[in-house]
Amino acid sequence: MLSSMARWEPNARERLVRAAVDLFTEQGYDATTVNGIAERAGLTKTTFFRHFPDKREVLFAGQETHSRLLAEAIAASPDSATPLQAVAAALDALTATFTDDRREFAARLRTVIADNGELQERAVFKRIGLAGAMTDALRKRGVPDPTASLAAELGIRAFHDAFDLWSDRTDQQALADLTRQTLDELRAAMATLD
Amino acid sequence: MLSSMARWEPNARERLVRAAVDLFTEQGYDATTVNGIAERAGLTKTTFFRHFPDKREVLFAGQETHSRLLAEAIAASPDSATPLQAVAAALDALTATFTDDRREFAARLRTVIADNGELQERAVFKRIGLAGAMTDALRKRGVPDPTASLAAELGIRAFHDAFDLWSDRTDQQALADLTRQTLDELRAAMATLD
Repeated sequence: MLSSMARWEPNARERLVRAAVDLFTEQGYDATTVNGIAERAGLTKTTFFRHFPDKREVLFAGQETHSRLLAEAIAASPDSATPLQAVAAALDALTATFTDDRREFAARLRTVIADNGELQERAVFKRIGLAGAMTDALRKRGVPDPTASLAAELGIRAFHDAFDLWSDRTDQQALADLTRQTLDELRAAMATLD
Repeated sequence: MLSSMARWEPNARERLVRAAVDLFTEQGYDATTVNGIAERAGLTKTTFFRHFPDKREVLFAGQETHSRLLAEAIAASPDSATPLQAVAAALDALTATFTDDRREFAARLRTVIADNGELQERAVFKRIGLAGAMTDALRKRGVPDPTASLAAELGIRAFHDAFDLWSDRTDQQALADLTRQTLDELRAAMATLD
């Protein structure tokens, strides 16, 4: 068990994610098994389960990393930053990791999720989780509620809307630029609510 | 089949919801079956499936009615109403249906959902659905995006936060009053985002 735990498979996590999305796209989510994903990735089922609890979570592999990136960037913002400025800095840190070579993969991931109600629910839950990570980080800076959660939710909304445009290739700009623009549009719209 | 479809069970839907929440509370969500729910309600499994596709949906029985109430109230708002005023009117229409005698039941429902990850995900998805119904109704009034969805999401957030206070009995006010206050607080917090 120890030797098995200690074995290192290069890029195992990323290979599993790519294999899963390939299979989900080719044969559908329901017809795809953990065995099939591991085999396609050239890895064992044991390796799969070292990285993910089930096939669904493969699609949400980035959640912890994304939450951490967002929280760290908020913590690192200057004291003078307003809540939304701290959120904008966090989104910059997150979107910098979505380089343009990931756009096609993101589009396929999005299609798989859009085709399955259970995955859509999980995706919404992930979004809530990311907003929660930003809310906590803002609270630690002394931002009171509900300001902290409103700023965080607006930021995640901006990221999500921009991600749809980016992965859908309806806009050729970088995700970072699209996200900043979307956040600006949401801020402007807030002033028209009443 | 026809005679079975035509049989009318008084309050079948409500009886099934109450039986389900009773059993979920007593023996847990996973251990409860559709058969068990139908039996507790004094109804047949066939009647259960006339009302709900599975045991999970029993907990979200109100979603369609709630969406309709919200949308109709927005449509009925005076032309002069701002987006948030129309949303406030919709929340008044919705919260009027949550009379104080439903508070204890709401608390139990909330506990069942909080104890189960799958149900939490479904609850979040319901919340998105209610916001979507309000967004559509606002768009039909000519409110542009993203103003329409921002107003709707702020409204659902207010309802949700107030519902937690109400069902948790941390506040003895009526849900309608709590929701209006929460919406006012969220509006005030919006002005402090940047």
